[in-house]
Amino acid sequence: MTQRVYLDWNATAPLRPEARAAMIEAAEITGNPSSVHAEGRAAKSALERAREDVASALGAEGADVIFTSGTTEAAALILEGRNLLSAPVEHAAVLSWCRPELRVERSGKVIVDDPAASTLQLANPETGVIQSLPEGLAVSDLTQAFGKIPFAFNWLGIEAGLVSAHKLGGPRGIGALIVKRGTEIEARLKGGGQEQGRRAGTENLIGILGFAAAAKAAQNDLDQGVGEKVSEIRDSLLRTLESGAEMVTFPGRESHRLPNTLSILTPGWRGETQVMQMDLAGFAVSAGSACSSGKVRPSNVLTAMGIATEWAGDAIRVSIGPTTDHRDIMRFADAWLAAYERWRQRNESRATAGRV
Amino acid sequence: MTQRVYLDWNATAPLRPEARAAMIEAAEITGNPSSVHAEGRAAKSALERAREDVASALGAEGADVIFTSGTTEAAALILEGRNLLSAPVEHAAVLSWCRPELRVERSGKVIVDDPAASTLQLANPETGVIQSLPEGLAVSDLTQAFGKIPFAFNWLGIEAGLVSAHKLGGPRGIGALIVKRGTEIEARLKGGGQEQGRRAGTENLIGILGFAAAAKAAQNDLDQGVGEKVSEIRDSLLRTLESGAEMVTFPGRESHRLPNTLSILTPGWRGETQVMQMDLAGFAVSAGSACSSGKVRPSNVLTAMGIATEWAGDAIRVSIGPTTDHRDIMRFADAWLAAYERWRQRNESRATAGRV
Repeated sequence: MTQRVYLDWNATAPLRPEARAAMIEAAEITGNPSSVHAEGRAAKSALERAREDVASALGAEGADVIFTSGTTEAAALILEGRNLLSAPVEHAAVLSWCRPELRVERSGKVIVDDPAASTLQLANPETGVIQSLPEGLAVSDLTQAFGKIPFAFNWLGIEAGLVSAHKLGGPRGIGALIVKRGTEIEARLKGGGQEQGRRAGTENLIGILGFAAAAKAAQNDLDQGVGEKVSEIRDSLLRTLESGAEMVTFPGRESHRLPNTLSILTPGWRGETQVMQMDLAGFAVSAGSACSSGKVRPSNVLTAMGIATEWAGDAIRVSIGPTTDHRDIMRFADAWLAAYERWRQRNESRATAGRV
Repeated sequence: MTQRVYLDWNATAPLRPEARAAMIEAAEITGNPSSVHAEGRAAKSALERAREDVASALGAEGADVIFTSGTTEAAALILEGRNLLSAPVEHAAVLSWCRPELRVERSGKVIVDDPAASTLQLANPETGVIQSLPEGLAVSDLTQAFGKIPFAFNWLGIEAGLVSAHKLGGPRGIGALIVKRGTEIEARLKGGGQEQGRRAGTENLIGILGFAAAAKAAQNDLDQGVGEKVSEIRDSLLRTLESGAEMVTFPGRESHRLPNTLSILTPGWRGETQVMQMDLAGFAVSAGSACSSGKVRPSNVLTAMGIATEWAGDAIRVSIGPTTDHRDIMRFADAWLAAYERWRQRNESRATAGRV
C-alpha cells in the first residue's frame, strides 16, 4: 500500500510534535486553575504562561487573549448582535452573524468603506487570498493566516481577532478571541469568573497548552523561512498542473496569497468528483470548506470573485504545510493530471457524440 | 518533601490513564470529521464511536449526545431564554439562566412542583446530596453524579442532562448536552453543520475521545464496586473528625449522598483559612465551588440548607476518588484535627480574654 498524502491542512493540520509533547505534559497538571491550593495555582500559572505564549506568537503583547473552544465560539462572542458588514468570502462562522454586503473584486480583494462597522478575514481558506486590513476594522478572522504568514495583531490596527489552534498544528477544540486590553465583552457562557468574566467554564488546559506550543513552533517555522519552502512547493504544483492541463485556472492567483494554499478550478469537472478520485488515488484534498456536513455546494468564495455559479462547484483546494514533501506533491500532480486527461477525453468523446 | 494529597476531585479529577492513552491515540487522527476523504471519514467514525461510548456509559442509548466545551456551554445551550425554576443549590453555570425559587429543605432536598418548568441537579458539588429527580423534569445537571453513582439517563425520566468530562477523569474543556432523540435545539454556535446542526465548530476530537475513555473507565469502576470503597474511606474520615472535634458538623450527612464528597462545617473557623492551612500541610481541599475567581463567599448551598449566613463560609469540602488512599485520608484527618485544636485553643483564649 502506498502511503497516503494529506493535502488538506486548511481543513485541519496534523498535530505538531511540540503540541503533542506539551499536551502530554499538561495531562499531569491536576488542579483547577480556579482553585486556591498549590495544585490550582500550578494550573493557573501554566494557563497564564500559555496565554502569554499565544499573545507573543500573535504579536499581541498587552492585548487580551480570551480562550474559547475555537474560532466559531470566538466569532459568536464578538459578533453576536452587532450585525457587522462582511463579504461573502468569510467563513460561515463569521457570516452567520453578519450582513454579507461588502463587495469582492475578481482578485478576491474585499472593499471596506466603514471599517468600524465591518469584519474582514486576513486570509481566505479556499483561495488563500490575503486582504489588506483597513485601520480601525472591527473584527478580523485571523484563523487561516495565523502561523502561515508573519503578522502582528498589535500592528494590524484592528479591534478584535479570531484564531484557532488546529489550523496551525495545535489541537481541535481550542481557539481565542483577541481584543485590545480591557475591551468590554458580554459573556455568552455564564456561571464562573474565568477569562476575566468574559467566558465561564473550567479552562481546557491540555488544549490551551497544546495551542501555545503549536503557535510558538509555527512562529519559529516562519522565522526560519518555512513559508518560502512551502510556497515553492505550492508554486511548482501550480506550474506542473498549468503546463499539463490547458483548461485549469487558479482563482486568486494574481493576488497576494498564503504560501500553502492552491485553488484549482477546472470548469465542467465537479470538485466533488475530483476529491473522490484523488482520495482513491491516496491524496486528501477538499472541495470548498470542510465545515458543513460533508455536502459540497458551489463555493460562495468563488462566485463572489465573479466565477459563474455553474463552474463554482468545479474547484478543489490543495493546502499543504511545513512537512509536505516535494515528491509527494509531484506524485499528486501526476495523479491529478492523469485523472484530468481521462476526464478531458470522456468530455471530448461526449462532445463528439453530441455532434453526430 | 512529603507527597501532596489531592482531595479536590469535585473541582477537577486527575486524568485517568485510559483517557490519557485514548488522547495520545487520538492525536494521530489527522482528518477533520467534516471532510469527505479517508482521513475525514476516519475522524468521523472515531467521533461517532466516542459518542456511542458516552451514551452507553450514561445509559442514554438512543438519546442524542451533543458534545460541547463542557457543562457551562451545555447549560447555556439548553437553558438560555427559558427562565426555568431552580434551587439556589445549583451550580452558577445553571443558576445564571434560571430563577432560583425552588425551596430547599434542611437535608438539602429540593422541592419541585412543576417538573416541566424546572431544573434540578442530580448531585450537589459541595455536599454531595443526591436528589430524586421528578418525572418530566426539564433539565438536570448530571455533572457531579456522572461516573460516581450508577444511573441511566433513559430511566431518569428527564428531558435533558448536562455532563462534563473532567469531573470523572476525562480532560477539561469537553462535555455534553444529552437530549431525547430529535429534540429541537437552536444552535448558539453557528456556521457549520456539526452535531446535527446544533453546535457548530470543528469537533474537539482529542477531548472527545478522552471523555469517552474516561466515561467507560468510570463505569467499569462503578460496576466493580469502587463506589463502596470510596464511600468507606470518606466515612472513616467523617468518623475520625467527628470523634476528635466536637464543634464539627457535616451538612447533608443525613441525606443520600455521593460516595466521595464530605462537607465539613466548623462554625467560626473560616473555610478559606482552613484551605490555606491544609494546603501548607500538603493537602488540596476546597471551600465551596472552585468556579469563581478564587474568591470564597458564604456558600449559597449551605445557606439554602438553613445554615446561618455567618457560618456558611466556615465549611470545607473534601472530595476524593477511586485512587484515594486510606492512609492519605488518615494523614489528612490528623493534620486537620491538629489545626482544629490550635484554632479551638486560640478561640477559647480569645473568648476568655473577652470576658476579662
